[in-house]
Amino acid sequence: MSILLVNGPNLNLLGTREPGIYGAATLADVEAAAVAQGEAAGHRVDCFQSNHEGAIVDRIHAARTDGTQFVVINPGAYTHTSVAIRDAFAGVSIPFCEVHISNVHKREAFRHHSYLSDIAVGVMAGFGVQGYTLALEFVIAQLEQAKTA
Amino acid sequence: MSILLVNGPNLNLLGTREPGIYGAATLADVEAAAVAQGEAAGHRVDCFQSNHEGAIVDRIHAARTDGTQFVVINPGAYTHTSVAIRDAFAGVSIPFCEVHISNVHKREAFRHHSYLSDIAVGVMAGFGVQGYTLALEFVIAQLEQAKTA
Amino acid sequence: MSILLVNGPNLNLLGTREPGIYGAATLADVEAAAVAQGEAAGHRVDCFQSNHEGAIVDRIHAARTDGTQFVVINPGAYTHTSVAIRDAFAGVSIPFCEVHISNVHKREAFRHHSYLSDIAVGVMAGFGVQGYTLALEFVIAQLEQAKTA
Amino acid sequence: MSILLVNGPNLNLLGTREPGIYGAATLADVEAAAVAQGEAAGHRVDCFQSNHEGAIVDRIHAARTDGTQFVVINPGAYTHTSVAIRDAFAGVSIPFCEVHISNVHKREAFRHHSYLSDIAVGVMAGFGVQGYTLALEFVIAQLEQAKTA
Amino acid sequence: MSILLVNGPNLNLLGTREPGIYGAATLADVEAAAVAQGEAAGHRVDCFQSNHEGAIVDRIHAARTDGTQFVVINPGAYTHTSVAIRDAFAGVSIPFCEVHISNVHKREAFRHHSYLSDIAVGVMAGFGVQGYTLALEFVIAQLEQAKTA
Amino acid sequence: MSILLVNGPNLNLLGTREPGIYGAATLADVEAAAVAQGEAAGHRVDCFQSNHEGAIVDRIHAARTDGTQFVVINPGAYTHTSVAIRDAFAGVSIPFCEVHISNVHKREAFRHHSYLSDIAVGVMAGFGVQGYTLALEFVIAQLEQAKTA
Amino acid sequence: MSILLVNGPNLNLLGTREPGIYGAATLADVEAAAVAQGEAAGHRVDCFQSNHEGAIVDRIHAARTDGTQFVVINPGAYTHTSVAIRDAFAGVSIPFCEVHISNVHKREAFRHHSYLSDIAVGVMAGFGVQGYTLALEFVIAQLEQAKTA
Amino acid sequence: MSILLVNGPNLNLLGTREPGIYGAATLADVEAAAVAQGEAAGHRVDCFQSNHEGAIVDRIHAARTDGTQFVVINPGAYTHTSVAIRDAFAGVSIPFCEVHISNVHKREAFRHHSYLSDIAVGVMAGFGVQGYTLALEFVIAQLEQAKTA
Amino acid sequence: MSILLVNGPNLNLLGTREPGIYGAATLADVEAAAVAQGEAAGHRVDCFQSNHEGAIVDRIHAARTDGTQFVVINPGAYTHTSVAIRDAFAGVSIPFCEVHISNVHKREAFRHHSYLSDIAVGVMAGFGVQGYTLALEFVIAQLEQAKTA
Amino acid sequence: MSILLVNGPNLNLLGTREPGIYGAATLADVEAAAVAQGEAAGHRVDCFQSNHEGAIVDRIHAARTDGTQFVVINPGAYTHTSVAIRDAFAGVSIPFCEVHISNVHKREAFRHHSYLSDIAVGVMAGFGVQGYTLALEFVIAQLEQAKTA
Amino acid sequence: MSILLVNGPNLNLLGTREPGIYGAATLADVEAAAVAQGEAAGHRVDCFQSNHEGAIVDRIHAARTDGTQFVVINPGAYTHTSVAIRDAFAGVSIPFCEVHISNVHKREAFRHHSYLSDIAVGVMAGFGVQGYTLALEFVIAQLEQAKTA
Amino acid sequence: MSILLVNGPNLNLLGTREPGIYGAATLADVEAAAVAQGEAAGHRVDCFQSNHEGAIVDRIHAARTDGTQFVVINPGAYTHTSVAIRDAFAGVSIPFCEVHISNVHKREAFRHHSYLSDIAVGVMAGFGVQGYTLALEFVIAQLEQAKTA
Repeated sequence: MSILLVNGPNLNLLGTREPGIYGAATLADVEAAAVAQGEAAGHRVDCFQSNHEGAIVDRIHAARTDGTQFVVINPGAYTHTSVAIRDAFAGVSIPFCEVHISNVHKREAFRHHSYLSDIAVGVMAGFGVQGYTLALEFVIAQLEQAKTA
Repeated sequence: MSILLVNGPNLNLLGTREPGIYGAATLADVEAAAVAQGEAAGHRVDCFQSNHEGAIVDRIHAARTDGTQFVVINPGAYTHTSVAIRDAFAGVSIPFCEVHISNVHKREAFRHHSYLSDIAVGVMAGFGVQGYTLALEFVIAQLEQAKTA
Repeated sequence: MSILLVNGPNLNLLGTREPGIYGAATLADVEAAAVAQGEAAGHRVDCFQSNHEGAIVDRIHAARTDGTQFVVINPGAYTHTSVAIRDAFAGVSIPFCEVHISNVHKREAFRHHSYLSDIAVGVMAGFGVQGYTLALEFVIAQLEQAKTA
Repeated sequence: MSILLVNGPNLNLLGTREPGIYGAATLADVEAAAVAQGEAAGHRVDCFQSNHEGAIVDRIHAARTDGTQFVVINPGAYTHTSVAIRDAFAGVSIPFCEVHISNVHKREAFRHHSYLSDIAVGVMAGFGVQGYTLALEFVIAQLEQAKTA
Repeated sequence: MSILLVNGPNLNLLGTREPGIYGAATLADVEAAAVAQGEAAGHRVDCFQSNHEGAIVDRIHAARTDGTQFVVINPGAYTHTSVAIRDAFAGVSIPFCEVHISNVHKREAFRHHSYLSDIAVGVMAGFGVQGYTLALEFVIAQLEQAKTA
Repeated sequence: MSILLVNGPNLNLLGTREPGIYGAATLADVEAAAVAQGEAAGHRVDCFQSNHEGAIVDRIHAARTDGTQFVVINPGAYTHTSVAIRDAFAGVSIPFCEVHISNVHKREAFRHHSYLSDIAVGVMAGFGVQGYTLALEFVIAQLEQAKTA
Repeated sequence: MSILLVNGPNLNLLGTREPGIYGAATLADVEAAAVAQGEAAGHRVDCFQSNHEGAIVDRIHAARTDGTQFVVINPGAYTHTSVAIRDAFAGVSIPFCEVHISNVHKREAFRHHSYLSDIAVGVMAGFGVQGYTLALEFVIAQLEQAKTA
Repeated sequence: MSILLVNGPNLNLLGTREPGIYGAATLADVEAAAVAQGEAAGHRVDCFQSNHEGAIVDRIHAARTDGTQFVVINPGAYTHTSVAIRDAFAGVSIPFCEVHISNVHKREAFRHHSYLSDIAVGVMAGFGVQGYTLALEFVIAQLEQAKTA
Repeated sequence: MSILLVNGPNLNLLGTREPGIYGAATLADVEAAAVAQGEAAGHRVDCFQSNHEGAIVDRIHAARTDGTQFVVINPGAYTHTSVAIRDAFAGVSIPFCEVHISNVHKREAFRHHSYLSDIAVGVMAGFGVQGYTLALEFVIAQLEQAKTA
Repeated sequence: MSILLVNGPNLNLLGTREPGIYGAATLADVEAAAVAQGEAAGHRVDCFQSNHEGAIVDRIHAARTDGTQFVVINPGAYTHTSVAIRDAFAGVSIPFCEVHISNVHKREAFRHHSYLSDIAVGVMAGFGVQGYTLALEFVIAQLEQAKTA
Repeated sequence: MSILLVNGPNLNLLGTREPGIYGAATLADVEAAAVAQGEAAGHRVDCFQSNHEGAIVDRIHAARTDGTQFVVINPGAYTHTSVAIRDAFAGVSIPFCEVHISNVHKREAFRHHSYLSDIAVGVMAGFGVQGYTLALEFVIAQLEQAKTA
Repeated sequence: MSILLVNGPNLNLLGTREPGIYGAATLADVEAAAVAQGEAAGHRVDCFQSNHEGAIVDRIHAARTDGTQFVVINPGAYTHTSVAIRDAFAGVSIPFCEVHISNVHKREAFRHHSYLSDIAVGVMAGFGVQGYTLALEFVIAQLEQAKTA
């Protein structure tokens, strides 16, 4: 049983640009921290990043049969343009949380709409890379609660 | 000379989810039935499915030189977001029909617009997987008529 | 037990105008073919055409008690303006398919919205008069399936 | 001198469908109750129902010369699509109240707009068939008040 | 060979309401004047009025085979709601002019759109009942010109 | 067990302004009439008016535990701007009717939208202060019916 | 006492372009015909054309004191962009008719809105250059009627 | 030095309604947990709830001089209607996080817009009452980081 | 007889924030200057500030009977959200001017609409705190003029 | 050093039309008063009026080199349609105030938008011709303050 | 035979404002460079600048008969507001390219729409004053190609 | 140091379809010409084409470290749908020009919006394949200028 962490397009650049805004943490740092946080709570965390919409759909499909119980996703730019990723989540019926590092509401109008938010369990924006930690904490609490229910 | 059947993102999940709505037929069943229907009428039916927008564009381009005379496509989520697939059809000038298994007009507002419908020959939604059969029947009739014209 | 075929305003002109687009088949031809197709499958097909919105509402109401099990309707111009026909279908609870001879998505913007599509079983546009044949084929399959269920 | 009660398309089905929502009262019951309520207050109540927009326009025109002092109308689906009925009321200058059995504000967005409300005296929705009784009570009070003025 | 003058819903009330705005001329007066104007120029003018959308569609269809060369229509409220009348004109391919007695641009916003204007030869509004005379004058000039061409 | 009558901002001015439109009845008159109407039918009617959105929310909360079975509310200007009052009703789960003295559909566009109508049982506008009487009549009928159910 | 005929931008090109659409008549022809038509009815017709919005405003101002009783204007492109010309008409309180040679409703969407139509007496489009004649005919009738009133 | 936790309208009902959705925790429980979480990290947490927009504005103003370093706010319904609370935050220049218990993106369209999000540090929705805990955790981390910076 | 100066939410912070923009004048300074300006012209100026919408409505109501002849109001954030304050002004029929210290047209889009401007006598924005002085000057001139009329 | 007063299209008609609304003051009166007001404070006031958009642009350009320190402009109809005047102000970088005699917010919707307001220092509407005086008073105060700064 | 270079309103200020953005080149420099570039390729380049919409229309009309084969235009602010200039180009049927010095897509929303782009041969924005050079280069290539065709 | 030329979906079909519009040049021709043009000016030009959005994002990322100084991109259909490519450019901070072969403003409305234009240096449309040459010319000038700065 595991948690899947998905990062969408351009998030592979994390830590290499605008450290004043995004911090100095790279994607590798973020993923290592997530794995460690999961491990500490007795959960495996699998990590995946791609700039390809289709590859993200494929990965979500694979989650149906690899024991994934919950997904944490930062869909990046596909948040605003991908119905395919939305449908992938609907197709596999795995609950997910949506995380954005920056506060998308402060940015361009086209970033105010998400094709995922209304089918997500929870949505978070603007908490920096700590947002991944907070979302994982919530997911772990949900899984514990489900176990004892 | 042949007919090409294209299925877009998430349609590889067919038969594995919500059988009450989509029926128990898998994508393999649908493709086998299409091949058989074509064969019975003396036409080869080639089948293709991908979750990648670019791969679908590539496949449509390939149709220019592999003898494809007509395309039947269920573009799935790319119906609503892909100008590239529209342009691919315009670029190769092969006629096509658009098929949706469910009645998209009953679903979310963003599914009411298609980037393909206004350049398709015909559009069909809500006839279940039988929609593929009906569209192929139309295509075969068109090809027969063209032959005798 | 029977199937009702309804044609809306201006469809009485079929075959008399723009045969290049609509074909040479008249409404009488279409209706005769539908009756024959039904008969071959053991179903009575009743036909009705009117240019009057109220008359179409009246006819749908009558279907409640005359044994109609399914309706195939080409609502013509009332597709885009009639809430009354929508409510008539909702009032009698008889399933129906919506058929358009031409591909309405290629035409004026006001033809892109239908007051019926979101409560129809299926919707079809652009398959010429063969669209009636395909829709009836679907309806007959549905009725057979219901019988054996 | 009299009051006219007009019911629009599909209201002839009243009592025969969804009694859980609309109650068991038929249109005949509603009309009989209205006639009795008027009689008790010394007013004749004339009743009319049609599924034809033109027939409703004709009936409103007839009201100009048959002694009608006030109209209570449930325009059904024509509420949202008929400028002709609006113009008929403007043409005959007879005051009217608009009544809807269900609360149209809970239903589809296209039912939120009425072509009649801004020229009606009063508008009422969601009070079930008791809405007719309440509107008639108001109308009778108005007529009494006008008499004594 | 003849000219057809069609008046839509509520225009039968002409002359009986708001003479300050619409003048004292009744529909009978308007029709008699049109017939006389046509006669003087050697053209028969046929007149038709109805409050029923379907009846107007039927009348336009009839014009295909009764020698009508041009239609002058004041579609009244159906200007803004009837796609069926638009399609009837498209179906019979008879040229027509659209006339409104009042200046519709001064009135409610929903009267600013017409389903007929973009397929009419010419459109006129606000010239009172003289608008019929001016439109007939244009139509007669067109017919004379066609004769000599 | 009781009925609560709530009047929103500016309704304390009733009877002191524009008696030609709103009548000469003051808020005290309206409340006294409501109490008497309730008493005659064996129901206590509690009355409340405030210009403060928060105070109206507080009062609706209090209704949860003071025996209120139904609310009649004229939310005045808060109709168009208060999500908090909407949420208060949703929070306490007490059914309510919405009453407007004037016909809001005749007034400015921003008065055509209500944050309450789609969760109200019924909505009424334009019946003057008699609207309160009619709504209470409906409420009393509902309570009687519930008692006997 | 006189009638003023104003032609807006680009109308000086009349007759020199697209004679198939606009006819062979030049602006000089149109103006000469208007002067003659006025003369025949005992009215002076003054003619003015400019490509400058400000010059048209100036000319309308001058009409206040030069005996102009009515204006016929084809505002050309300024129809859709000039509030200044609208205000000029409102400022001098001289009635005017708006004329367009082509049917603007058949053209680009931005030509469907006019800043003048709702304060014009009448509006006419699509009657070719005969539109000027018809409008003048109406104006002359109005002036005669005013004289005898 | 302290953190302020503000809850807006209707949140005083927490725990008393729809426990299936909102959980059994009351507002008192939420506030006690927040105080304890702060204490454990060496921060005082002040709590405030009101149904009055003005009272919330007043409370935020008071935060300017009472040592508040960060605010966590669940503005409830005022999220969507209050510019005053937005301006209060802008006026006092204290950073804040916005928390919603439910996923507002799954609810009515008017809940998709917030007057606060674009000036908040971070926004969170759908994480249940655990959302308060996660937001406080972030705030505490921010304050620690600022201290060591 | 007197003039009432009303300041809305957050204006109590005046002078304490962003003196570069708003100047160093506090609300007390502004009010003292207004009182002095009135006194010099022989008029009493009453001052009121509140962050509560309802309290502002109450204060405007009180103005009906306390001799207020004119109101100068800076409604702050309630400019954009309060129909209740609009209705309060309509209810008491006291003329008022609307003043904004900053130029609201340079700020967020939601600040470009005011619920008060179309019923105000005059509106002013961007003149700093001198705006109050200018508006009072106008009001005093109006009152003088009324006196001598 | 000087102040420039610009009046746009139709303002030359001031005093000659609708004196009930605009007062009896002519443009000459307004300009004379402005010159006198400036003189009294030691500032030259230059006056300019034109109905031509280009001429106003030219005049603003000229202000760059003729010592103009501030502009007061009533752009009339060009308020709503001229990007060129906006760009002229941006090009010469001279601060300006926008003045409207009437309250444009009470008028047609297209008058609610100004191409100048968001780059103006201040905007004023509805104060009659006194608006010019108030704006000049502000401008003079600004210039004094700049001198002493 | 020649090429016409038209510059619209405010471009006479080129080089005198914001040299950081627009460069130090004046309009005279730009025009001299264009003339030289044309000369080198054997083409006369005529230059014209005006702040007056009507004057630009006049100049384009003149191009019909002065041997102009192609126009390069920077319409400045009239890009967004002038239908008259669009119609002038349509009227004279001379091909043209549209050039903007700055990237208009980075600026205010009202600068994103052009009344000219959809009838231009090509459109260019953001290449600084080099844009004129590039456009002329294209035009010269077109003319050479036409000569040899 | 180098320049990168990116071509998006369907541009691999260049030269094989509609040579009347797009010319006979293939993508290979375009790329060879670009390489030669760069070489002549002392710059390496790298070429890339893909139908995959993700592959284009990947290629832009690679440009960060392969010495690319400027990008010329024809994003094809992804112009209108890809936020990911926009974010890729923002992520790598390499300046780019956007080129379209045809004039997109003449085509379907959905092609009028670009997700790239407001962050591009310059945008060009409608200059045929010469557009690539002109854009490269500008880029080379920019690089030269930067070198000498």
